[in-house]
Amino acid sequence: MASREGLRPGGRSARVQASVHGAVQALMTRMERGEITIPVIATEAGVTPSTIYRRWGDIQELLADVAVERLKPDMEPVDTGEGGKDLLAWAEQYAEEMSSTPGREMIRDVLAAQDGSGAYQCCNFTKQQIELIAGRAKDRGEAFPDVDDVMDRVVSPIMYRILFGEAPDAAHVTRLVSGAMQLISPASVGEPT
Amino acid sequence: MASREGLRPGGRSARVQASVHGAVQALMTRMERGEITIPVIATEAGVTPSTIYRRWGDIQELLADVAVERLKPDMEPVDTGEGGKDLLAWAEQYAEEMSSTPGREMIRDVLAAQDGSGAYQCCNFTKQQIELIAGRAKDRGEAFPDVDDVMDRVVSPIMYRILFGEAPDAAHVTRLVSGAMQLISPASVGEPT
Repeated sequence: MASREGLRPGGRSARVQASVHGAVQALMTRMERGEITIPVIATEAGVTPSTIYRRWGDIQELLADVAVERLKPDMEPVDTGEGGKDLLAWAEQYAEEMSSTPGREMIRDVLAAQDGSGAYQCCNFTKQQIELIAGRAKDRGEAFPDVDDVMDRVVSPIMYRILFGEAPDAAHVTRLVSGAMQLISPASVGEPT
Repeated sequence: MASREGLRPGGRSARVQASVHGAVQALMTRMERGEITIPVIATEAGVTPSTIYRRWGDIQELLADVAVERLKPDMEPVDTGEGGKDLLAWAEQYAEEMSSTPGREMIRDVLAAQDGSGAYQCCNFTKQQIELIAGRAKDRGEAFPDVDDVMDRVVSPIMYRILFGEAPDAAHVTRLVSGAMQLISPASVGEPT
């Protein structure tokens, strides 16, 4: 999505984007989702509807764009001093946030867009958080499973259950994390650096 | 969703539903998704728009309802004579169908509805297929992992990757299935019946 790439911070394009995103978020706090249309957003943001149509194409793409921005992690995963515990703390928070009402709405907005790049970016945000935990574990000389395996064994079941059934409870998240941590083979233990 | 429960087959209500579902599917083959509105569907189905609004509420609920019907499995999983092979054959087909363009559109329609009951039903269809494979394995006296574990270890990663990244390749699906099959503990092997 061109709207998110290569924006010069503070440039006109970035200012329009910030103002439209802000308008969407403000409207969401006081209107039903179904009432938020591009003309309504344009009025709130002080831009013309055609500015929005030109940049985002349709309301789904705009809502997905706003949701991706909101899903961007705003903090590093908690550092407990141990990879397995970091992963558990992160997974508990992820399950909690994503299964909340705003969390579910953001995922729905991201997945509703025809353009799949928003979903891809969300997956990358998640992956980067796990890579951070894995990197810290490695720096401490601990073994840690492959990030792709953590995506399959921890992230995927949490997200599947939130989307298609009921959010996993704390005991379930704990089981998923211990299952993933058992993947560590003794050979993968690094030397402390 | 009341529209899918307790319909007397052949009754007036069931006939209206079949005609509206048929209209949506016919329109989808010749129109862009964005052009399909409730008035257009009503004309195609030969019912009034208010009939559709009354029963489904909005277009998203109707599209989700149609998608759930189409996602209902129309065959039993292939019987290879061995649980692990049945699961692999099923998982390969599932990954292929769900990552196809119509598969992705159906999932998107199901998840876009505010009412989560469609997503829940899809999850149940999948679960029933795995239960069938598990039941056959048990009848042959084979061990088979817990159905919930298969959902976490095989179904969830396939669906997560389709929704948020790239569909898993055949080698990945094979790895997921063998991982799940390794969960079998010797104690869970039943006696042939």
